[in-house]
This record gives sequence, C-alpha cells and structure tokens, in this order.
Amino acid sequence: MIEAVVFDAYGTLFDVFSVEEACNNAFPGYGKQISEIWRQKQLEYTWLRALMRQYRNFEEVNRDSLKYTLNHLKLQYDDTTVETLLNAYLSLEHYPEVAEALHAFQPRKLAILSNGTTHMLTTVVQNAGLTSYFDQILSVDPLQTYKPEPQVYQLAVSTLGVAKEHILFVSSNGWDVAGSKAFGFTVGWINRQNKTTEELGVQPDHVVRNLLQLAEVISPK
Amino acid sequence: MIEAVVFDAYGTLFDVFSVEEACNNAFPGYGKQISEIWRQKQLEYTWLRALMRQYRNFEEVNRDSLKYTLNHLKLQYDDTTVETLLNAYLSLEHYPEVAEALHAFQPRKLAILSNGTTHMLTTVVQNAGLTSYFDQILSVDPLQTYKPEPQVYQLAVSTLGVAKEHILFVSSNGWDVAGSKAFGFTVGWINRQNKTTEELGVQPDHVVRNLLQLAEVISPK
Repeated sequence: MIEAVVFDAYGTLFDVFSVEEACNNAFPGYGKQISEIWRQKQLEYTWLRALMRQYRNFEEVNRDSLKYTLNHLKLQYDDTTVETLLNAYLSLEHYPEVAEALHAFQPRKLAILSNGTTHMLTTVVQNAGLTSYFDQILSVDPLQTYKPEPQVYQLAVSTLGVAKEHILFVSSNGWDVAGSKAFGFTVGWINRQNKTTEELGVQPDHVVRNLLQLAEVISPK
Repeated sequence: MIEAVVFDAYGTLFDVFSVEEACNNAFPGYGKQISEIWRQKQLEYTWLRALMRQYRNFEEVNRDSLKYTLNHLKLQYDDTTVETLLNAYLSLEHYPEVAEALHAFQPRKLAILSNGTTHMLTTVVQNAGLTSYFDQILSVDPLQTYKPEPQVYQLAVSTLGVAKEHILFVSSNGWDVAGSKAFGFTVGWINRQNKTTEELGVQPDHVVRNLLQLAEVISPK
C-alpha cells in the first residue's frame, strides 16, 4: 500500500539543535537559547513570508532569523560569525537510527521534501553520508513558498508519480504533520520528545518515537 | 495625507495578557504561563490554518490554542473552564491611552481590522466603551483567511475607499507591522515593550511607545 516514503529534513532526519555547540563556541553560555529562538523564528518567518507573498529562500530566512535571535539576546556579532553559524546548518547531525531506518523502508522510493534550498539539502545529506538512499531531494524553492501550503506537498506527488494516499510522509514537526495530513498523505509523526499534540483538526496515522519504529509499523513492501 | 487610521485589535488596543488573572483564577500559579503559550499558539494556528487552507474562525482557533496550552502544561480541565477563559477574551482590558488617542486621530475615519470574528470584536469594543469611535469594525472572517495575507489588508482599502498609502495602519505586533508594510500601508508600530525588530525585509514608517505618541507624530488633519 505504501509505495514511497517522503521525509521532512530538519528536525526529522537532522537534529536542528545540533547547532547548539557551534552557537556556544561563538557565544559561550548562549548555545541552547540561540538554537531554540533561532529555530522558532526560522519557522515563523517561513510561515509569514509565505502568507505575505514575500518569499525569500531558506538560506536568507535562516540568516534573518539568526540575526533576529542575536539582536534579541543583545549579542554583538559580525558577518563572519553569522556565516560560521549558518554553515553549521550544512553539517547538522543526523539522528542515530536514520541509516538503518532508511534501509528498512527500501525498496520503496525514498525522498526528502523540505523548506531548505537544494544546495542546503544536498550538502547536509552528503555530509551525513546518506545520498545513496534517496531517489529525490525536493526543495520548496521552485514553488517560492513554504510548508504547509498544499502545493508544496503536491510537489512530491507530481515528482514521484505516486498517489498521495500511497505516500507515507514522515515528520517530527507537529505543524508539518498536520499540513501533510490535511493534504491527504498517509502520515507518520516521529514524536521523539513526547511533544504535545497540535490542535489543528487532523491526526497522523502513526505516532512513533523514532524512524525505526515507523519502519517496523509499516508492513514490508 | 493620512485619511484613515486602521487599528489591529489584539495586543494593540486590547491587552491579550489581561486574561492572565482569569487563567490564574482557574489554574493558580499558571496564569502567566497559560496566557503566554496561549497567545503564541493562537498566532501560530492562524498562520498555519491560513497556509493549509483549513480556515476555522478565530473563536475556534482560540479554543484550540487554549486546549493545546492546557494539555501542554498537563492541567486538568473541563468544558466549563475552557468557556470561562474564552469569555475573558470578550472583556480584555484596553490600554490606558486608547480613548484619548482615538479622539486625537479624529476627524479621520477610524477602523479596526482584526483576526477576531465580528462577534468577538464588537463585544470587546462595546465592553470597553469604545464603540462610538469606529466607523468600521472589519473581521477577516468573510475572507476565510488570516493576517498577514495581503487580501486581508486589502479589505480595509476596499471598505474605506481610501488609497492604501493614505491609510495609517497601527499594530503592536511586529509580524503584522511587516505584513501591512509589505502590503503598502503607511505603518505605525506601537512597540510598548521595546521588542526586537522583526527581520522580514520591511520597516514601519513610525515606531512609538504608545498610541498617543503616534497621534502626536501624525500631523493633524
């Protein structure tokens, strides 16, 4: 029944909070705070720019949200520091079970569908040594908007040529889970930290603690 | 030059954190936390539902975001408690300078443009004794979407019959300031708490600490 598995990248395959160390090196004692506010603002700016019809790509949004964060915390910074922290997004740590889980989901088609630019995504996947697992790495960038607009999820359907209910969409982000389920995918929520369920009117088909659990729940192809 | 003044309601005229007392009565010790998480989730859910094309009106979004908040804080509640807290939104406190400032902006046309439903808005305005100041109270509800989508701001232009650059749009919410400026209004940011400037590519025309300061900056009609 599940013909293809499409993964969110940031927070699902890759730990966005693994930038904490780089943030802490640049601003000792502030690593955790920076990584948390940065992530929250980064998401807000994608939603707001999509609604405002003022798209800028994820590299720019990531820079803007980092600058907001450093301004907010009243930290002094220069361009070099900002670029160093942005580069940390190109070598985010992946969660420990990722490779084993991707292997278990095969021989289905596997893809990434993410807000990141193609450059950011191919680089972070390559740095993690995961390139060979994916048939497609899909960025929202050609659409000039962000998740959870339905047309973003439609991109996976069009590119993979698989009906949406036969696509398992996998995300650890509650709002992405809601958006993809409202669109019509079969959806797995990777709820690693036992987060509170979002009240957005839809529920995922599967709720698990990690990717490997999800691979076990989905019957073999 | 400024022919009409259009106000955001929640956070700009009315203090959304004035529900803290009602929250604290229902859940002693949790008032501040509830009011803060509730507001953040309420905004997120408007942005997400607008992007997902899954509009529900602000009464429903407000209920959903409150439920998320209470679940998140692991607080026990029943329907009566939820309705009591939702009712607090109908009698939010207005900021102390509001009446004097509205008087100073006259004889221009004055309007409210808000995410709230018409019922919520007319009730909170009436409970604050401010009804007579406004020519129009405009809700996003007929458009079935939320700020900062450009069509929401266009509603004020169409209804008031005033060109957008001759409308002063007033908000204390940084994201609403960005959205309304990107749309093309003349914009005043009421930055009461010295908040960090949002990095969304546009800047307001005026930054002030309260509504009365803004009325003084705008030359008399």
